[in-house]
Amino acid sequence: MRNIKIVLEYDGTNFCGWQKQKNGIGIQEIAERSLGKILNKKITLIGSGRTDSGVHARGQVASCRIDSSIKTPEIKKALNSYLPPEIRVKTVADVGVDFHARFSSKSKIYKYFIYNGAVVSPFISKYVWHFPCEIDYSVVKNEIKFLKGYHNFSCFQAKGTKIKDTFRRVYGVDFKKKGLLYEFKIEADGFLYKMVRLIVGTLIEVGRGKFEPGRIKALLKGGKIKRGSVAPGKGLFLWEVIYG
Amino acid sequence: MRNIKIVLEYDGTNFCGWQKQKNGIGIQEIAERSLGKILNKKITLIGSGRTDSGVHARGQVASCRIDSSIKTPEIKKALNSYLPPEIRVKTVADVGVDFHARFSSKSKIYKYFIYNGAVVSPFISKYVWHFPCEIDYSVVKNEIKFLKGYHNFSCFQAKGTKIKDTFRRVYGVDFKKKGLLYEFKIEADGFLYKMVRLIVGTLIEVGRGKFEPGRIKALLKGGKIKRGSVAPGKGLFLWEVIYG
Repeated sequence: MRNIKIVLEYDGTNFCGWQKQKNGIGIQEIAERSLGKILNKKITLIGSGRTDSGVHARGQVASCRIDSSIKTPEIKKALNSYLPPEIRVKTVADVGVDFHARFSSKSKIYKYFIYNGAVVSPFISKYVWHFPCEIDYSVVKNEIKFLKGYHNFSCFQAKGTKIKDTFRRVYGVDFKKKGLLYEFKIEADGFLYKMVRLIVGTLIEVGRGKFEPGRIKALLKGGKIKRGSVAPGKGLFLWEVIYG
Repeated sequence: MRNIKIVLEYDGTNFCGWQKQKNGIGIQEIAERSLGKILNKKITLIGSGRTDSGVHARGQVASCRIDSSIKTPEIKKALNSYLPPEIRVKTVADVGVDFHARFSSKSKIYKYFIYNGAVVSPFISKYVWHFPCEIDYSVVKNEIKFLKGYHNFSCFQAKGTKIKDTFRRVYGVDFKKKGLLYEFKIEADGFLYKMVRLIVGTLIEVGRGKFEPGRIKALLKGGKIKRGSVAPGKGLFLWEVIYG
């Protein structure tokens, strides 16, 4: 029995997310079907975590136990020939039997892109949140600092989940401006349901002056105050999953 | 009566090109319909030229006579609210009565993108020709030099056109390598039907050693030899139309 690690990249626009839903096709399902064809067996992939509907990935990781002797470069090639062009396998590697895409991960990096100009190019419109109002870059740049560290992120969790431990450790945050494009980056040991998008939604309200600076800090301290809305899924990328 | 110049950007993936066809929707048609709604009148746009099915544009230009007093920023805003996100209006400007998007143009720049790696990212797959075989960069870089100048490009014209003067002046060519992405750039006073894609198809055959170096020169001199196939439309961008 072998254990393999698959790194996937996908344009989430036309999928209902990593996991299958009643009303749409999940990326996991498509990948399982493709790998199943290659190995001639029903396959279950373990993902590092779910990505929501419309969310993209530059480096989603899945693991899977297989009992085939097909070499990893051939698995990669065959997978890419079965998968639609919106989903690509970047690497397939043999890993130790203990490797588990979800439980072995040390941290994850997400990036969120916001386009601040009046007109979004058709070549990026599916990968950014179009927010044309003025954003005070230095205010947001300062606001993100409060996110770093070990906090109770319950205020940044959307409804529809049963998770009780809402503490997460944020290892790093960054907010960059490249012309009219803003890039928010966050690395943490785990993320709650819609956590990144709720943080981004809140940051933007601070950046445009609707919320006062320090709102993130107050929310993390349990303040009974409003957070921002969920930012659109299309601006979000699961960038990298980091293992020990 | 005013004359306006509209600069458009579009992702050509889901359109049958600039001009409408029996079997698909043209970008011109959609833009005319949107402008018609704004001006409450049937509109005819003059494009700088056609782009084929699946071909993209960073700077297509159209001109149009209108007898409305709506200011250009409002026209731009209204157009972008009617148009689908795949088509964006970058600028709308009042121009002299003699301006004609097609006849006033001095030259056009096209770019063609080729991805030379094994796996194409889903984020660029609709904008590149995936050509994973080895290409000798320096051979192609040298080959493109023959294109510059005033030549008979009849060998680089696809069937299905009645154009008789097949001489065109190429002002500049370039071939760049950025990692695994190749970018071919050509500026000329005009282009024949599928000319850029036939040139690219031929350059690639030279680059991978199927045609001998100098093939472009021989073809331009009227040699009765094979040219390459038409490169896929999705790698081609009408980059800029230049006016005097």
